[in-house]
Amino acid sequence: MSLVINSPLDMHVHLRDGEMLKNVVEYTAKYFSGALIMPNLLPPITSKEQVQKYKKEILDVCINKNFEPYMTLFLKEELSFDFLNDIKEHILAVKLYPSGVTTNSQTGLASIDTEKLKGTLEAMAHFGIPLSIHGETNGFSLDREKEFMPIFEELAAKFPKLKIIMEHISSKESISTLKKFDNLYATVTVHHLLMTLDDVIGGALKPHNFCKPILKTPKDRDAIQEAVLSGDKKIMFGSDTAPHAIDKKESASGSAGVFSAPVLLQALASFFDKHNSLNKMQDFVSTNAKNIYNINPPKKEIILEKADFLVPNIISSVVPLFAGEILNYSIKQ
Amino acid sequence: MSLVINSPLDMHVHLRDGEMLKNVVEYTAKYFSGALIMPNLLPPITSKEQVQKYKKEILDVCINKNFEPYMTLFLKEELSFDFLNDIKEHILAVKLYPSGVTTNSQTGLASIDTEKLKGTLEAMAHFGIPLSIHGETNGFSLDREKEFMPIFEELAAKFPKLKIIMEHISSKESISTLKKFDNLYATVTVHHLLMTLDDVIGGALKPHNFCKPILKTPKDRDAIQEAVLSGDKKIMFGSDTAPHAIDKKESASGSAGVFSAPVLLQALASFFDKHNSLNKMQDFVSTNAKNIYNINPPKKEIILEKADFLVPNIISSVVPLFAGEILNYSIKQ
Repeated sequence: MSLVINSPLDMHVHLRDGEMLKNVVEYTAKYFSGALIMPNLLPPITSKEQVQKYKKEILDVCINKNFEPYMTLFLKEELSFDFLNDIKEHILAVKLYPSGVTTNSQTGLASIDTEKLKGTLEAMAHFGIPLSIHGETNGFSLDREKEFMPIFEELAAKFPKLKIIMEHISSKESISTLKKFDNLYATVTVHHLLMTLDDVIGGALKPHNFCKPILKTPKDRDAIQEAVLSGDKKIMFGSDTAPHAIDKKESASGSAGVFSAPVLLQALASFFDKHNSLNKMQDFVSTNAKNIYNINPPKKEIILEKADFLVPNIISSVVPLFAGEILNYSIKQ
Repeated sequence: MSLVINSPLDMHVHLRDGEMLKNVVEYTAKYFSGALIMPNLLPPITSKEQVQKYKKEILDVCINKNFEPYMTLFLKEELSFDFLNDIKEHILAVKLYPSGVTTNSQTGLASIDTEKLKGTLEAMAHFGIPLSIHGETNGFSLDREKEFMPIFEELAAKFPKLKIIMEHISSKESISTLKKFDNLYATVTVHHLLMTLDDVIGGALKPHNFCKPILKTPKDRDAIQEAVLSGDKKIMFGSDTAPHAIDKKESASGSAGVFSAPVLLQALASFFDKHNSLNKMQDFVSTNAKNIYNINPPKKEIILEKADFLVPNIISSVVPLFAGEILNYSIKQ
């Protein structure tokens, strides 16, 4: 049995830079038609010049040229109408990180003041630039996403023409909030779709499954699965693939992030098949994102076959998601 | 300022065996008058001969001889009246591990059938041998202790003359259950008293704070603090200090257990002082355990001084709790 996916899109990707970029980019560029590239480098991507330079760096190292890296801008401070007008053709979204919530987010916003951001957000709405948000507070780990919901609600209500993307949602509360406002959208990762906190701390400690937002309870995972399987057109795939070298993960102070790029479409096909919903996969991994972001990515056909795929134990210096496990879908090479 | 503690007792200790025992035993033997030694070795301690051999191994490597290792027996199957009669002078408690809940618990009980265990538990009550329980199910990590409460309640109600120790309690539900039955008692660790899940997964991943039962929410920690500070005489100190070599912790599959022995009394003094309750410490770390277990440990005076104590980064091959941090009480040498 095989399944054809047209122009798959991964709308939340950390490609890093330098050597790591070279080691990981092909797993996204080969299997996806396009990807939304996160801007949390050191220093973060905050200008048109940096966007252009980073995009060139990505394309220069890509073997698969039939791939579009959609760029984002790191929101560090208010942005003027003119700045946004000048950069709008070069980016697909502006990314908001609350300060301190994840890797390289130190220079993110310390507070989200909708009055202060009014000019920026109205200009973004005017130009049709979506606001992508890592929606977590600095509260207790399991409550951070839930505690962020009033901020999503305030933003969605005050800026009804702004498209707001709730990134890598991990909780049932996010599903409820998403349904309340037409201008809220969400990305869902493979790991939040398939796993729970038990995959980090339930048996032995599994640093390679450690990520932010932290994996949650079975009820949260079930709510996300239900929403994805319902075919909600406001939910799109975004892997949050985020490679860290093995010594940064198996450490006294382990980095957060799951390197899922090598297993994404295979794991998704297994998931949709298990739930007799393979017909929902095209929308989730491509069509919904095309409609939400108004993009027309390069044509690419990926063929998934029902055949065992043994996930490598390590890729360059990074341990991928499901390392050493067997998935029951493979990508036809 | 200084504080004298008489004959401190640590009623839940993993000393391991072989090299590890030699490396860690002195941190317990020097600062405590006695300790309850857990039996989950490989193979577990299930006979009088093993108890005697293990106790001798411990005493042989102790430099501080003014220390009593109180021994326990690993409950693998029903125990006869005669077996218990023969072993009763050699052990202070029988330890029940549900199968699979923590380190070396594979051969623990797969189910807790109070009918099947009736003879064993009635004989233990007859001889005055307490039942020490690692109270967790095999459910979702954050719910395991809560889900175990009906088993504690059934045991406490069916065997009112049996002393039952709820080991290393970590949740508010345990505090509620403890209060319901006169024959339920509990140990509290330093890490469950002072920390939450955020100390494992809240920032970077901290494998050296990873333990079973997993650290819980601020509400759970607060409930435990409140119970300890209330001076509840059914609650005693048991550290669950459980050393693992650094490479077993900073690993793709990290072991559960916190090596707290080097910092216990210093951390407790800081805690009680912070809450203006230094006068409660003697009961918590000694008197309550003496009364619950009816023991008369060797006389030992430990003097705690209000003076900075820089916790070592590593001790032999093990990273201790609070490594590299400064506690504001030291033990006078």
